[in-house]
Amino acid sequence: MSQHPGDHDPHAALDDGLDPAQLGIGDMDAATFRRHGHAVIEWIAHYLDGVDDLPVRSRVTPGEVRAQLPAAPPQDPEPFAAALADLDEVLLPGITHWNHPSFHGYFAISGSAPGILGEALTAALNVNGMLWRTSPSATELEELVLDWLRQLLGMSDAWKGLLTDGASTSTMLALAAARERTGLDVRQRGMAGRSDLPLLRVYSSEQAHSSVEKAAIALGLGRDGVRTIGVDDAFRMRPEALTAAIEEDVRFGYRPIAIVATVGTTATTSVDPLPAIADVRDAAVDELGHPIWLHVDGAYGAALAACPEHRHILDGIERADSLVSNPHKWLFTPIDASALLLRDRDALATAFTLVPEYLATDDGEGVDLMDFGVQLGRRFRALKLWLVLRYFGVEGIRRRLRAHVRQARAVAAWVAAHPDIELVVPPEMSTVVFRLRAEGRFGDTEATDTASRRVLDHLDADGRILLSGTVLDDRHVLRLALGNLRTTDAHIDRATAAIDEALQALAGDGGVHP
Amino acid sequence: MSQHPGDHDPHAALDDGLDPAQLGIGDMDAATFRRHGHAVIEWIAHYLDGVDDLPVRSRVTPGEVRAQLPAAPPQDPEPFAAALADLDEVLLPGITHWNHPSFHGYFAISGSAPGILGEALTAALNVNGMLWRTSPSATELEELVLDWLRQLLGMSDAWKGLLTDGASTSTMLALAAARERTGLDVRQRGMAGRSDLPLLRVYSSEQAHSSVEKAAIALGLGRDGVRTIGVDDAFRMRPEALTAAIEEDVRFGYRPIAIVATVGTTATTSVDPLPAIADVRDAAVDELGHPIWLHVDGAYGAALAACPEHRHILDGIERADSLVSNPHKWLFTPIDASALLLRDRDALATAFTLVPEYLATDDGEGVDLMDFGVQLGRRFRALKLWLVLRYFGVEGIRRRLRAHVRQARAVAAWVAAHPDIELVVPPEMSTVVFRLRAEGRFGDTEATDTASRRVLDHLDADGRILLSGTVLDDRHVLRLALGNLRTTDAHIDRATAAIDEALQALAGDGGVHP
Repeated sequence: MSQHPGDHDPHAALDDGLDPAQLGIGDMDAATFRRHGHAVIEWIAHYLDGVDDLPVRSRVTPGEVRAQLPAAPPQDPEPFAAALADLDEVLLPGITHWNHPSFHGYFAISGSAPGILGEALTAALNVNGMLWRTSPSATELEELVLDWLRQLLGMSDAWKGLLTDGASTSTMLALAAARERTGLDVRQRGMAGRSDLPLLRVYSSEQAHSSVEKAAIALGLGRDGVRTIGVDDAFRMRPEALTAAIEEDVRFGYRPIAIVATVGTTATTSVDPLPAIADVRDAAVDELGHPIWLHVDGAYGAALAACPEHRHILDGIERADSLVSNPHKWLFTPIDASALLLRDRDALATAFTLVPEYLATDDGEGVDLMDFGVQLGRRFRALKLWLVLRYFGVEGIRRRLRAHVRQARAVAAWVAAHPDIELVVPPEMSTVVFRLRAEGRFGDTEATDTASRRVLDHLDADGRILLSGTVLDDRHVLRLALGNLRTTDAHIDRATAAIDEALQALAGDGGVHP
Repeated sequence: MSQHPGDHDPHAALDDGLDPAQLGIGDMDAATFRRHGHAVIEWIAHYLDGVDDLPVRSRVTPGEVRAQLPAAPPQDPEPFAAALADLDEVLLPGITHWNHPSFHGYFAISGSAPGILGEALTAALNVNGMLWRTSPSATELEELVLDWLRQLLGMSDAWKGLLTDGASTSTMLALAAARERTGLDVRQRGMAGRSDLPLLRVYSSEQAHSSVEKAAIALGLGRDGVRTIGVDDAFRMRPEALTAAIEEDVRFGYRPIAIVATVGTTATTSVDPLPAIADVRDAAVDELGHPIWLHVDGAYGAALAACPEHRHILDGIERADSLVSNPHKWLFTPIDASALLLRDRDALATAFTLVPEYLATDDGEGVDLMDFGVQLGRRFRALKLWLVLRYFGVEGIRRRLRAHVRQARAVAAWVAAHPDIELVVPPEMSTVVFRLRAEGRFGDTEATDTASRRVLDHLDADGRILLSGTVLDDRHVLRLALGNLRTTDAHIDRATAAIDEALQALAGDGGVHP
């Protein structure tokens, strides 16, 4: 304060709502933190309790939010309450509410209350668990909750893992381990300008997530390094097509290094046949004498294996090398938290370990999680997941997953009984995929596709619910995702009513072709 | 609840401290959230107010924390208070307190109060800003705060950026853009098995952070793809050595694709000479006719450019292509928040854009930040940074940075006046690097190095402060990092007293060689 004696009169500032600490060089004092902190808790409680009354999707136009905020940072401190007011008045209208019970747009996620409080605690502790010794609890709780997750999914104790920010990172790390397992020493020598390297290939189905291709781009395998395998009529990878692709590639000099199977694809939640894919992998390994990594993308779907009656979706997982499951999707943990589990976690260390002198540790200390990936700094993400697992318990999690599956089946039954729409596939998980019936009252296939896109526009304008669409077999389809803890049966009724109204409005609006 | 009628008697459960919602299928209700939320705020207020009384570094032994927690996840829900009790009794002893005012171990970071509250709000909103339309405010506030940061650092409006989880990711993305700018179409074709690719090379000084090498590993450039350039006696990259390295590499068929300069190296906070390095780059580009990307790692140090009298550390930045500055280091934002600023942000999109059908957007909408990197899912990280910048204001940030620089100079003056220790370099930023005087009372160079490591052990056992060590010019050196908002001049006195006591104890403990 003394450096800028004329700038502020502390008393005037307090009248403006500034905290004394803002005029000094420290952080907020404890009493003031309590005051603002309790206000934030009230804000969150009010938000969570009232989000249902807000339009799901923001109605703002591009640039509208930013235009209402100052283009330059404030020179002087501002009252905390002023920022909270802007949060309400400026930012909230620009929020599409992922935590809304009628958010059915993407795989539904819940920032559950114990997870939210976990994030606050993580931010307060603000530790960096890069090394065991830089905060032993961060590493040990991460190891523990990953083991809890492994048990929840019914997997053997051969698996160890780490938490990352998302499935894109988890899959990239797994494929980096696969790349290193080739024995081609990419870690040291890289891939450019080497005459001793074959073309490298990763296989995934045409329904796999785009993160596989992004990982291949990042890792220098390129989009050409990913070969897409066809699917059956339930959108599952065809093992015989995988065999044929590998055989053809080998004839042309490619080296297969990894297969990515999906448990719960983005478009339809289909489950690739892991045992048959593992058979193809084993046969290729026998023939070629090279390792081929089997990675499983269960970012959304694997969580359902927590229920014994659904555990079959992970049949064959013990033959895989890695699995990604995102607790920030269907496990009620606020974004971000992705679990990468591996049967040989050291394969990641083989690819990535680099210990600069300033982080060198004595022998005999605990595991250093920074050794297993690109990221050095590591948030204490385990805390929120630990709180979520404890707060709900295994049976509580199962009860909730089952409720979402039940809700999805109810929506599916409604779709099946509706004259204008039909299921694309029966839902296996908590996402219902359906389309407008072709040659019905919306006209031919092309007109029906146009109408399908207009259903989304209509629902967006209506604002009560949010769906998303995609294209399957050249037909536009609609996706209704469930999985938010706050979605009740009344919200299901709301969703079906809104969709029905949209269909009626479109039909009455020239969509009918008699 | 009805699915497991015999499991729980709600009244008994409430007696155990369970919330009604835990027995059902929903999330915590608003009233219960208020109760637990306010308890968490009290916990955090108590923690921040009392952290100074805790030992900085955890004293637990490997496995000690985990052994006190159940090996399996709880079958039934547990009271929230039980988890908070375990946080106190089991986890806290295993925390090394990065938010402690006497944490001088690594670049000091502050999880400031407005940032902590920002994280709680982010978790409650739980949006994923992968596309503009999936939450316009997330994208627009991120664009805004990055522009505020740009202005704070005194950079031109040519720069745009994105927030990532850390400098390792930011640097990896920048080098991926560099790799694509070669025109070698690595994005599509990859690098393996191509006879048309030269060896590719990235240059950084021997004082550069290990993240450069990790990025090279991930990107398939390999450790051999990074050539290390020597430094001068102030640990700054030598431009003439860079020129010589590039010339030699070109003679041997390598293609230089990027140079990484550092503003604030990890060991000494040295600042590479950006203008001279940019000159070398320009000369090489003129000669070779290929682009060479200049990335600047200012993860820790760039923040200091907020102060006009220190802005010279970024002289030449307008000739660079990218800069990473981590608000979670010296800008009071809880981990994680790293800003990657680029003069041509679209170079990232050129490397990475992939739009799966389900995320296809209409023309004319806002920018989709998922296009600029590996990660698809994007936390609303901008909110906490926005709150921090508003709460402190530009002048408040400068006042705090200046206080840390002043504290570092005070420590440096104390070191310079101490008979047993000496500065390695005068501090430019908020980290003081010093070493035991060789041939002093600790003996020859080797004995002095041993004594230096024992100083760290002694301080760890003492528990009042945490320092770190590294090796420079084959000598063990000690690092005392400042930058936490809660570090007062009294903590500086505590640090110098603890170091002095450690030195005296070692000298009295056989460390003296007369």
